[in-house]
Amino acid sequence: MPEPTLDVIAIGNAIVDVMAPCEDAVIEQFGMTRGGMTLVDTARAHVLYEAMGPAREISGGSAANTLAGLAALGARCAFIGQVADDQLGEVFAHDIRAGGIAFDTPARAGDPPTARCLIFVTADGQRTMNTFLGASQFLPPAALDEAAIAAAQILYLEGYLWDPEEPRAAMRRAIAAARTVGRKVAFTLSDAFVIERHGADFRAMIETGEIDILFANHIELAALTGHDDFHAGIATLKDKVPVLVVTRSADGAVAAAGGELVEVPAEPISHVVDTTGAGDLFAAGFLFGHVRGRPLAECLRLGAICAAEVISHYGARPEADLKALVTEKLR
Amino acid sequence: MPEPTLDVIAIGNAIVDVMAPCEDAVIEQFGMTRGGMTLVDTARAHVLYEAMGPAREISGGSAANTLAGLAALGARCAFIGQVADDQLGEVFAHDIRAGGIAFDTPARAGDPPTARCLIFVTADGQRTMNTFLGASQFLPPAALDEAAIAAAQILYLEGYLWDPEEPRAAMRRAIAAARTVGRKVAFTLSDAFVIERHGADFRAMIETGEIDILFANHIELAALTGHDDFHAGIATLKDKVPVLVVTRSADGAVAAAGGELVEVPAEPISHVVDTTGAGDLFAAGFLFGHVRGRPLAECLRLGAICAAEVISHYGARPEADLKALVTEKLR
Repeated sequence: MPEPTLDVIAIGNAIVDVMAPCEDAVIEQFGMTRGGMTLVDTARAHVLYEAMGPAREISGGSAANTLAGLAALGARCAFIGQVADDQLGEVFAHDIRAGGIAFDTPARAGDPPTARCLIFVTADGQRTMNTFLGASQFLPPAALDEAAIAAAQILYLEGYLWDPEEPRAAMRRAIAAARTVGRKVAFTLSDAFVIERHGADFRAMIETGEIDILFANHIELAALTGHDDFHAGIATLKDKVPVLVVTRSADGAVAAAGGELVEVPAEPISHVVDTTGAGDLFAAGFLFGHVRGRPLAECLRLGAICAAEVISHYGARPEADLKALVTEKLR
Repeated sequence: MPEPTLDVIAIGNAIVDVMAPCEDAVIEQFGMTRGGMTLVDTARAHVLYEAMGPAREISGGSAANTLAGLAALGARCAFIGQVADDQLGEVFAHDIRAGGIAFDTPARAGDPPTARCLIFVTADGQRTMNTFLGASQFLPPAALDEAAIAAAQILYLEGYLWDPEEPRAAMRRAIAAARTVGRKVAFTLSDAFVIERHGADFRAMIETGEIDILFANHIELAALTGHDDFHAGIATLKDKVPVLVVTRSADGAVAAAGGELVEVPAEPISHVVDTTGAGDLFAAGFLFGHVRGRPLAECLRLGAICAAEVISHYGARPEADLKALVTEKLR
């Protein structure tokens, strides 16, 4: 195989986040799943948008956020995801390209519109997400750029995109394409409810060795392994994936690889504004260290630094100069 | 006349701001007018958007921002402005209504799309605005709700909207409608370049007594009066409008009314993030005090507090609970 010309190529939802602060009571009043991601249809999206205060729109999407962090750190990245041929699609495409990420998936004509995620942020910084998948769920396997996948050191996939059928098929094909040429596959479990729906698929992929780097948070770890005990969950998985990374909010994160088990505390932060993107940016920092061949402890530290930056402001994409930030913090 | 059922009704551009931080060099490289507002066509908007980094979208428009502040303070408000029947139009309409402001101008079908303003924010917090007027310039006089205008204590108009022909005609008709029923007309000069183009109109309106409350910053004051000296400018105007309010950035603001001349310092702030909306929110605070019959010094102080809040974050609409903020600050 030739040397990779890309560090990470990702397939994910192409979503614009619509976010606003809200009172705790609103979460209950509208029966939202606090802290979770729920798929919503047009009617429900309309009801929730009506209930939302003045908002701001910022490009999001889990894997796309991770790439935004990776690119800001200096990695060479490409994204595959489906927007519609509309204004929010233009916004998404602009923002990802302006971040220095290659993005060539053609916009899809006609309905449905570009995906959006209505994010209600409570005073504690917790985000409750309501995703209208729109065009994002129609990513066709034909949109895969197999040459780009073969050119990337790592193929990164988000569990959220396992729900809709077409992208699931596209991701399965992408995994095969990457593995055929000896590239690594990284996967993030995304959400406990996604695991409820697709845990069997995920467990099968892990058992058959299709996943080289697995990202989860402590809740997803419990949902996947059936172990409420954190360390029991880690023990169950750590020999089944070459690299296992588990975050646990304010309690830091753990990685297991090559027989090594390393922990890192969360990066201190004065005020949590909005936790949207915390896991995505943790993955960005970790993967950046990984593709640069850094020790496991440093990969974790990079993840913690990037996660701390993104939760200090609204929006799931970095605002600070991440490269300067990690240089300063790791000095 | 019956008692007013609205405090302020405003006519203004219905714009979504697209904002991103930028290096100083970008302003020069693309020949932008630093700190000013420039109207751009589709081609120029495209070039500048390409040059812009990852951005966020937040509803804006000068008079609409002022209403957002007024409504947050507890005033009863209505807005008249033209969006297109598209996604950004939905965003604008949602955000203004979610702020508690009545907004009934029907969306306009077909091209052009909803207005957007590409705002480049340099490290010093200065904003350089490039406005694509889109649908906003086609606000027809027929869209005026004369009953609502008659029901409002104050009709508030933005100078920016004097550029396009249809809204200019609409605003002239609105002024006549308000004055016929004895309501007050407030006007903000908006921008020195707008005064270059329409100063003769503005001076004529002032001379004929059509403006009851005039808002300007020190640069606009100089452009309108021809006096570079601040106090000479004030002296020229203060007897021609019942209430004159002039802001001067970090140097505070001055108001002249009823033979009284009052100054207020700028509200202290630890870090200026983005000055977009500073004048709009100053006007909001001042008008709120005015409609509540507060003394001139308190009206100015309210303006300074609201302006300080909006420049402490990205976006020209308040994020903090303004009502709580002014209660605390005025205690």
